[in-house]
Amino acid sequence: MKPAVDSRQRYRRVSGRNQLAGKVVSIQIQGLLAEVVLSVGDTHVTAIITANAVRELQLKKGDLAAALIKSTDVMIERLDDPS
Amino acid sequence: MKPAVDSRQRYRRVSGRNQLAGKVVSIQIQGLLAEVVLSVGDTHVTAIITANAVRELQLKKGDLAAALIKSTDVMIERLDDPS
Amino acid sequence: MKPAVDSRQRYRRVSGRNQLAGKVVSIQIQGLLAEVVLSVGDTHVTAIITANAVRELQLKKGDLAAALIKSTDVMIERLDDPS
Amino acid sequence: MKPAVDSRQRYRRVSGRNQLAGKVVSIQIQGLLAEVVLSVGDTHVTAIITANAVRELQLKKGDLAAALIKSTDVMIERLDDPS
Amino acid sequence: MKPAVDSRQRYRRVSGRNQLAGKVVSIQIQGLLAEVVLSVGDTHVTAIITANAVRELQLKKGDLAAALIKSTDVMIERLDDPS
Amino acid sequence: MKPAVDSRQRYRRVSGRNQLAGKVVSIQIQGLLAEVVLSVGDTHVTAIITANAVRELQLKKGDLAAALIKSTDVMIERLDDPS
Repeated sequence: MKPAVDSRQRYRRVSGRNQLAGKVVSIQIQGLLAEVVLSVGDTHVTAIITANAVRELQLKKGDLAAALIKSTDVMIERLDDPS
Repeated sequence: MKPAVDSRQRYRRVSGRNQLAGKVVSIQIQGLLAEVVLSVGDTHVTAIITANAVRELQLKKGDLAAALIKSTDVMIERLDDPS
Repeated sequence: MKPAVDSRQRYRRVSGRNQLAGKVVSIQIQGLLAEVVLSVGDTHVTAIITANAVRELQLKKGDLAAALIKSTDVMIERLDDPS
Repeated sequence: MKPAVDSRQRYRRVSGRNQLAGKVVSIQIQGLLAEVVLSVGDTHVTAIITANAVRELQLKKGDLAAALIKSTDVMIERLDDPS
Repeated sequence: MKPAVDSRQRYRRVSGRNQLAGKVVSIQIQGLLAEVVLSVGDTHVTAIITANAVRELQLKKGDLAAALIKSTDVMIERLDDPS
Repeated sequence: MKPAVDSRQRYRRVSGRNQLAGKVVSIQIQGLLAEVVLSVGDTHVTAIITANAVRELQLKKGDLAAALIKSTDVMIERLDDPS
């Protein structure tokens, strides 16, 4: 996995703060939408995009792709108790 | 970093598909909002949440926290060319 | 319905400002997604989440649940005319 | 508080499934943004909108307003344990 | 197409900064959701809303409608290189 | 303004359905965030992105840029009455 700084370099064209580079591990198209799962480092990121987008991007399992997420769309959940 | 499957277990209470466990590396409060950066594996995830939330969660650098993101808020960007 | 302040207490772990406690009144799964309707006080809140989330949370009609909504995802609509 | 069904009637013009009618209880403008809190039934809903929007809507404490929220922006959190 | 300023006038009731007036060019309902495409000026705007919303708004091809988008939901992508 | 079809061509790398090409007409940075307004055809699109993003993209008035918006983030508002 590229250190965070490098993964920023490639994406200076898009304002979204989170551009998590990874690989497509599964694609499921149903009706208007598609679920695309990326492996990013040793965790998974799930996206629901349109089926048209999957076709237009010609996205397939194994492709290199990034999850593009606005920072205002990220909630934070505490996992430990305040010390 | 926990394998993806384990990081799901702990969050069966919330519907959001993406719960990326990590550690708080920086917090910047300005006006109504705050920028919180987590290290997740070897990449960074940036959240913009309210300053009130940071205070209420008593969030500090080094705390264990997860980035909670709905799959419908994730865009996919191709990084290679279709083969 | 718990007064707003109490309903905040329980959720100090998640940054989302809106955590509207209520009861599941209907669940409709179709394809990748599911519509979940909660009764919150004397109004309804509708969520579209993934079908996987409904299964993973083992969500059923009558369960106690909260609608978790980021404040940046809330628009305001005026209902009266400016005095 | 109007029963859910009535509160739907008035909003047949906008697709957002959640239109939670209430009253403005506080407005805080800071920089580009503003925090607007509505009382909806006996709970609170917090919105972060732009300061321009508050000025343009001439929004004041006590005004009647609705929180307009897309169903795809609502997460569900279980509050009890699966029976 | 109305100059931007006029298109603002009509929508002083809703806080969303982007209210792009246009005409419905296609509607596709599948399962819980519907894809609605508007022609706005000489470009297209695509919305994914619920099938219930399409029915409730009695939306048909040719209707006048606006795409309502929060400014916090808009990313910016550079199209040229920094000079 | 390019016809809708062309404006799609250039963006086959990103899944977001709405990529509204235009020109930066104003940038306002305040605290963590920045308001960026694009002229798109004869209307305006307003984005709230992070101040860091404006700096990283080296965004200036007059630059060519697109508003990148997920279709699930677009609400529809009826402008006329059902016939």
